[in-house]
This record gives sequence, structure tokens and C-alpha cells, in this order.
Amino acid sequence: MPELRKDPIIGRWIIISAERGKRPTDFIIEKNSVRGGFCPLCPGNENTTPPEVLSYSNTADRPSNKPGWEIRVVPNKYPALIIEGDLNKEGEGLYDKMNGIGAHEVIIETPDHNETFTHLPPARMIRVFRAYRDRITDLGKDPRFSYVMIFKNYGAAAGASLEHSHSQLIALPILPRMITSELEGSLSYYSYKERCIFCDIIRQEINQKIRLVAQNELFIAIAPYAPRSPFEMWILPKKHSSSYISMDENHFVALSEIFSECMLRLDKCIPNVPYNFVLHSAPLRSDSLSHYHWHFEIMPKLTMIAGFEWGSGFYINPIPPEEAARYLRDAEI
Amino acid sequence: MPELRKDPIIGRWIIISAERGKRPTDFIIEKNSVRGGFCPLCPGNENTTPPEVLSYSNTADRPSNKPGWEIRVVPNKYPALIIEGDLNKEGEGLYDKMNGIGAHEVIIETPDHNETFTHLPPARMIRVFRAYRDRITDLGKDPRFSYVMIFKNYGAAAGASLEHSHSQLIALPILPRMITSELEGSLSYYSYKERCIFCDIIRQEINQKIRLVAQNELFIAIAPYAPRSPFEMWILPKKHSSSYISMDENHFVALSEIFSECMLRLDKCIPNVPYNFVLHSAPLRSDSLSHYHWHFEIMPKLTMIAGFEWGSGFYINPIPPEEAARYLRDAEI
Repeated sequence: MPELRKDPIIGRWIIISAERGKRPTDFIIEKNSVRGGFCPLCPGNENTTPPEVLSYSNTADRPSNKPGWEIRVVPNKYPALIIEGDLNKEGEGLYDKMNGIGAHEVIIETPDHNETFTHLPPARMIRVFRAYRDRITDLGKDPRFSYVMIFKNYGAAAGASLEHSHSQLIALPILPRMITSELEGSLSYYSYKERCIFCDIIRQEINQKIRLVAQNELFIAIAPYAPRSPFEMWILPKKHSSSYISMDENHFVALSEIFSECMLRLDKCIPNVPYNFVLHSAPLRSDSLSHYHWHFEIMPKLTMIAGFEWGSGFYINPIPPEEAARYLRDAEI
Repeated sequence: MPELRKDPIIGRWIIISAERGKRPTDFIIEKNSVRGGFCPLCPGNENTTPPEVLSYSNTADRPSNKPGWEIRVVPNKYPALIIEGDLNKEGEGLYDKMNGIGAHEVIIETPDHNETFTHLPPARMIRVFRAYRDRITDLGKDPRFSYVMIFKNYGAAAGASLEHSHSQLIALPILPRMITSELEGSLSYYSYKERCIFCDIIRQEINQKIRLVAQNELFIAIAPYAPRSPFEMWILPKKHSSSYISMDENHFVALSEIFSECMLRLDKCIPNVPYNFVLHSAPLRSDSLSHYHWHFEIMPKLTMIAGFEWGSGFYINPIPPEEAARYLRDAEI
């Protein structure tokens, strides 16, 4: 019997259609067809990207835009939104529009062209997470922006167009719909229960254990109850916190360790699977929110978005999260 | 300068990033890799599908589940939801679930394996639209269902797994999120203006003409103001009507004519483009609604859904609808 499950935060329903039962090995991963050839993200090619806005290096006196960096953040050469200008909201009859003001940056996660995010040692993955914090903090000073969306596309099927390991950020002048839905849903729960719904989820998942993928002292990784995609995972801080950028400096180690573990477990289940991950955090410059809880959502790209999903906002998932979590936990890494 | 545009009905923002300016010929359509070989939807293979729930034939005495049909509707052999059982809503800690009760059917649009929906003559396309109405009407008698979602996936990239031209329906025990958003958004507009927002859109589009793709006496086809995908089109009845199944019998000709014209124009711009279309209509058994307006949404599959779209609910569209509409209008068909 298929099952309909509701995401408790935003009310999105998904269909667990396990009659179509699949094991991880049933997913056929096509050869990554991301463009090869000249790589603008490789050391030595710094002059082919816009000038860096941030870099971390092991050498104190490295000149900007030269090799020697460990992490490098540059504006996207083909940005979806542009940084200069006014918002200039206006109507057109019954329609509303505004200038496409924003920032679109590329976080180059490693100088090594062939190193994947999944295989970054936690001690180096830390720098990626610090770069996220530093860029969000910096862009948050610009009053035109309401939100900075951090995301990663890995593999052609998940939308990557460059092979060299990188994530991206887009600073937006309006709150994304997904974040608004999460804020509203979690506020509604808080108004009723006076508890954070994410904290309640964490408690239930630690208790039940069936959807638990990994945990350490500070973080938990779960297969969410109503996942859009097979092997979807969420990583959340155990202690309540609404904003990623307020994370304690000494929490980055634990975050990197659990993130690395999740990626390695996923890769063991479905080698080289294309995926997206997205950071969900409170709006820029918001106070600490009692009802919201920052987290990462990792979505392997294993199913299609077709007419039914477009029309309904439902997703059909052939693998129950309890099974996915078991496969992930059992993977030998 | 990119532009941020808001869908006036549900408030979804999209980014028109015309700096990435593209012409229809810039889109590379990969060879349709839908499974060939034995076709369970072809005449003569009726015994390989579940028994038909509806068929139209030109011969009065055709026996069921034998060749001679023009349109045939059968339950999906691998349904996402199943028809037998009770809804049985229950909780699991803070989570909610219910049995996956529903119907999942396949509307076989033609007996000819090689005929595409786009190239069906309007006189035969009519039967497809009648079949939609007849199945929604029939399933609407089942009080367990709230909504029947009609959709079509064409081409492997748009999620089709069989080559033979077909659309699908899924009857759902809960209202899909997308329809709820449309109902809420249009009601909110109606409460303020006492007018249907779709009727206002139709008026503005007929007036401005820049996003108009086609029209006849009864229907209009437009490129919507805030399209998720390049060459997205909506087809709406000019006269206010909330429910597809209340359409006058003599309106089917005009619907088929405009739908056929739109598909031929699209195919001329981007030959053999993969696409999805979805029927949006009022919930089952609802009274006539003053604020809601049924319509079809046609979405060519030309861009990727990646991390940014997953995380934000925003879409990035490289072609302004005004340009897409011009290409579509100018196509010689």
C-alpha cells in the first residue's frame, strides 16, 4: 500500500510508492557529462574569473587572484542577478516586477580540479562552511538584500555546468517562497505548542532512531519523514539556533565531520550520485527566532520532476526514508 | 538588467535573466530516449494493460479491450496510488500520514504508435479533451477523492517512460498544494477587487497583445507574465468558468483548435521539444467559484531544476515571455 505523508513544517505531501520498491543499486547513474576542457576555476586561471571577493590561503602573503589559495570566492561570470543598481519596484497593469538586483557568487571549494566535495577531508571541508558564513555576513550588510541562498549542484543531472568542485550563492532582494513557507509553518506550530518544530523533530528522531543517519555531540543527520527524493537527508544543529551565521566558531568541526560522513555514506550507497544541497537559514539581519531552526537539505537527483509534480506540488518517492536511512547507516565507510 | 517578476496569482517570483539571452534555436534537444520495443499501449496488446475504464470507438459494437478504439483509458499498471481501501488518516508522533488511496490512469490518445499529440488533427484531439472530462466526472463521484490531476509528459527529459502518445490522471484524496495556492491567491484578489484575477489577466493580455500567442472566439493562449520555463504557455477560456467539467459540449472544438495551434507553433520554434502540460481546475464537487478560472499550463522542458530552484522556489528563465510569444506568433504553421 502506498503512503501519503505530510511534511510537518510546510505541509507538503509526498507519496511513498514502495510498490515500485527500489534498492540503491537499482538507480542507474549516467556518466557525468559536465563540460571538461579548460577550467576557469583551476589555480593559474584566476584572471579568467571576476576578481575574488574572498579567499583563504595557507600562506600569509599570497597576492590576490594568484595561485596559492585553498578556498576562493568569485562573482559568477554569468550572473542570474546583478549587483549594481536600485531595486526600482514597479507595476505593469496588474503585474509586479523589480530590477534583478542581487549577487551571484561561486565558492571554489578546493584548488584540486579532481577532488570532489564528498571526498574533502573534514579538516578542509571546514573552510567551505566558514566561507558560507563569511559571505552571508558580508552580503547581509547590504540593506537591499533579504536573503542569501547557498546551494551546491553536483553532476550534470543536478544542474552543474562546471566539473571543478564548487558551490554557489545568490543574494536576493526578496525572501524566497520556500523560506517564507518554512517561517510561516514553524511559526504556526510555535504559536500552538510554544516549541520549535525542528527541535521536536530532532527529539522524535533521536528517540525513534529509524530515520537517523548519523549524529555527533552537536549535529544530527536524518532522512526526513516526507522526503521529496530518495535518500534525501537533513543536517540540523541539535541545539536550537535560527541563523547559520550565529554558529559558534568551534562548531564547524562537528558540522564538517557529520556532513562528510553523510556524503561518504551516500556515495557508498549510490556511487557518484548527482545531488543538490541547500542551506536553509533565517532571513538576513533577523533577530534570533524561537520558531525557526537552520539546517542543510541534501537532495540526491534520482527521480524526475514531471507533469504531476509541476501541477500538484506533490512528489512521488519510491524509497521510504526508513529504508534509505538503514541503507545509509549500514554503508561501510 | 535581469528582472524579477511575480506571478500575480500565487506570488511565485521568477528571474528573467535575458543577459543569458537565448533564441529558440539555441536550445539543444537531445534525442528522445524513451523506451522503444514492445508497446503495451498499441492496438492488439489490450490484454497487457489492466481492463479499460473508458474507450471511444467509431464502431458501435466494438468489444471491450479489443482493437478498434480511438481513445482508450486504462488504470496504470504501476500506479503511484491504489484504488482499493480506506484513507485511514493517522499520526506518528508529530507526523501525519494516510493510506495512498487514489486512482492512476493512462489516457491513450491515439491508436497510432507514431502519432504525436502535437500532430493530432483538432477533430481527433477533441476526444482527448472529452476523455479528460468524462474521467474527472466519473471519479468525482467517489467521495474519497478531492481532486483529479490531469497531466501529460512528452519526451524522456519531461518524464515520459513510454513512447506511444498518452496523458495521465491521478485522483487524489487531498487538494494538491499548487491548487490550494491558486485558490487562496485568487480568493484574496477577489476579496479585494471583486473580480476574478484570471479574467483580469485575460483582459490585460488581449489589450496589451505582447504576450498573446493565439486566440479564438472562446479561448486565449498566452505566455504568462512570470513563466517558470522558456516558452511556457497558458490556455484559458475567455468566459469565466471555474471547472473544466462544466464546459459546454460545443466548446471542445475551439479548445482543440487553439491547443493544436499552440502545440504546432511550439514545435515549429523548437522541434520535438519535451514538455509537460497540466490541467488546473476547481476541486471536485465544488460549486461554481467566482474567483477561480480553469486553464491549462504547458511547460516545455528546457531548463534544469537545480539547487537554487529547490531551495528558493524561484525559477530562472533566460527568455522573456514577450520574446517567446513573438517567436510563437511568428512561427509559420
